[in-house]
Amino acid sequence: MALIVQKFGGSSVADAECIRRVAKIITGTYKKGNQVVVVLSAQGDTTDDLLEKAAEINPNGSKREMDMLLNTGEQVSIALMAMAIEALGFPVVSLTGWQVGMETTAAYGAARIKKVSGTRVQEELDQNKIVLVAGFQGINKYGDVTTLGRGGSDTTAVALAVALKADICEIYTDVDGVYSADPRKVPNARKMDEITFDEMLELASLGAQVLHNRSVEMAKRYNMNIEVLSSFTGAPGTIVKEAVKKVEKTYISGVAQDKNIARIALVGLKDEPGMAYKVFNLLAREKVNVDIILQSIGRAGSKDISFTVDKSAADAAYRVLMDNQGALAYDHVDINTDVAKVSVVGGGMVDNPGVAATMFEALYEAHINIRMISTSEIKVSVLIDKEDTDRAVAAIHAKFFG
Amino acid sequence: MALIVQKFGGSSVADAECIRRVAKIITGTYKKGNQVVVVLSAQGDTTDDLLEKAAEINPNGSKREMDMLLNTGEQVSIALMAMAIEALGFPVVSLTGWQVGMETTAAYGAARIKKVSGTRVQEELDQNKIVLVAGFQGINKYGDVTTLGRGGSDTTAVALAVALKADICEIYTDVDGVYSADPRKVPNARKMDEITFDEMLELASLGAQVLHNRSVEMAKRYNMNIEVLSSFTGAPGTIVKEAVKKVEKTYISGVAQDKNIARIALVGLKDEPGMAYKVFNLLAREKVNVDIILQSIGRAGSKDISFTVDKSAADAAYRVLMDNQGALAYDHVDINTDVAKVSVVGGGMVDNPGVAATMFEALYEAHINIRMISTSEIKVSVLIDKEDTDRAVAAIHAKFFG
Repeated sequence: MALIVQKFGGSSVADAECIRRVAKIITGTYKKGNQVVVVLSAQGDTTDDLLEKAAEINPNGSKREMDMLLNTGEQVSIALMAMAIEALGFPVVSLTGWQVGMETTAAYGAARIKKVSGTRVQEELDQNKIVLVAGFQGINKYGDVTTLGRGGSDTTAVALAVALKADICEIYTDVDGVYSADPRKVPNARKMDEITFDEMLELASLGAQVLHNRSVEMAKRYNMNIEVLSSFTGAPGTIVKEAVKKVEKTYISGVAQDKNIARIALVGLKDEPGMAYKVFNLLAREKVNVDIILQSIGRAGSKDISFTVDKSAADAAYRVLMDNQGALAYDHVDINTDVAKVSVVGGGMVDNPGVAATMFEALYEAHINIRMISTSEIKVSVLIDKEDTDRAVAAIHAKFFG
Repeated sequence: MALIVQKFGGSSVADAECIRRVAKIITGTYKKGNQVVVVLSAQGDTTDDLLEKAAEINPNGSKREMDMLLNTGEQVSIALMAMAIEALGFPVVSLTGWQVGMETTAAYGAARIKKVSGTRVQEELDQNKIVLVAGFQGINKYGDVTTLGRGGSDTTAVALAVALKADICEIYTDVDGVYSADPRKVPNARKMDEITFDEMLELASLGAQVLHNRSVEMAKRYNMNIEVLSSFTGAPGTIVKEAVKKVEKTYISGVAQDKNIARIALVGLKDEPGMAYKVFNLLAREKVNVDIILQSIGRAGSKDISFTVDKSAADAAYRVLMDNQGALAYDHVDINTDVAKVSVVGGGMVDNPGVAATMFEALYEAHINIRMISTSEIKVSVLIDKEDTDRAVAAIHAKFFG
């Protein structure tokens, strides 16, 4: 008998049919003699519908009231799922974030989990019940409800799994695992049986949106194994864990892409000490996360600094740079959103020199121009023109997995 | 400065426009220097939509999970109203049933309020905030959410008003007060400025659905004045209170009707002691509430018993009588749902003999046949054919109010 935490996203509980299908997965796990705790997201478009209602009344409503509103979405999901499981004749109970003691910070809209009591969940498990928990939500020290922000339900699932000392945290999605590249784009992409937390973190941050980084970081910190699998096929998925035993040693675990970025270039900065500090300190104060940074010598006595940011942060970055043109004394700012980042990721990279060269060779053969390069211990990323993205991923994947 | 509890029903918060209109009423009361606590129902069709979703998944879902589901409706209302009030620039906070300490029994779907802590509400009032509270809901000793059943939000409002020692509990509806008859049917129906709790109880139980009996009973027990008024006109409504000072002494306060009843006749019962006990004990065990009872001598050695029940209970009543035909040894059962009850209500009745006679005279002049009669200290009711209802109410109203 194992204690299994399962998480199903919004598309898995979108309507009555989906809910009944997921109810069968849950009760199937329970019938095998396991203890089952299930974390659910809000149904399909519920959150968007609620946001629309709020926007109609007040586009600038407080985050506290927004969280009060959004909390209802997951509550509807757990109640409906409980009824579906009751219809199948199994003992079940649904619990909200405050009922399971999901204590968070007071940062409405983006609360962080501080502590999970889990007492109530354990009591219900002891009574042989399947326990359904509303994801994405918690309660703060004022006794007010909060939401966890992006990736919230995945994080709820991992936090509960850790608190309950579960054997595994299963994250059900609409794909059947983690692939060496996007299988919709690269037909011969390979599904990986196992992948390390670090590799998963790199893949997620590079636009492979299977698991949110926050949940993977938490799983890594507490060494909680995650399995990513499909709620449609029922086949084994990909296990994300600390160390992976690789029978067949591959250089890289995957090729990822991210089209949601912008490249910003500051041209003609004075070539004097401290300029980079000034630029990125300003951006940090505006909470703009910078990814790849590249600095080059420009014309006599000047230098250029280019960097990439998330597309949603491009405006804020541009504004703060323009506001400080005097202090920074640069010539002009250039923004390009027609770019994409393509990366190869893999723990095997450190033992295999030449990964970067092989990647560049694949791009050269495909006649794709590289705009920027960034490397780390387990990753090589390049910035290319957005229109070349799919061709680049296919060419690199073919080169490595062949 | 007064402490005012206001309650707005589902139609008052049906959409963004309604919500903005109500937000103005609330902030208008606050601007006059009052402390304001507002109880809200779920938006228009929300509860029906949720019930439909549940029925699609499991028509027999447990009441606990149904309450978990339905609780979200009022939570959406309070969050949206809070945002509307924020948009007007006033300090506001929304609170759920469990946040205000609305402790109820564990009877999911029809919980009774046991205790209202009110601590959190008082804290927020002390910070000069407008406090919005989700109606219809509470929390039981297991820490689970409950709903109060019919008339729940009115009851929430009165219970909060009592707990907070409010000066008045204002119930906003789509009519502008309590009338001497249904103003849609009787054009010269009078709006009453004041009415006693007892009169209101009789009127409510007789089909004048302005206030639910449960809330009036609670208001009577704790002597909390209620004002029934319109969320559209803003004009003074009807105050429901313990004793009414009547400048102009009227015999009766109103004429009410109820078409939602059935008359059941047990024909040919043995004329021996204990038969009535047996019949109504059986019905009571099936939780069938019986209203008017009439017993008459039938043919030699037998008697007939007729009684009225709520139409929704007619099937259950019929079934239990048929199941016990042997024991009761009656001839046959007759059910008639084409009947209506018309009543005159008024505290002035006890001092004015002849109220019943005047009522019967009005019906006689209108050629309306009386099927059954029932009287109490402050009420005379008659059972008539349903098709005669509107004519009967108009004739009786004209006779008393001229």
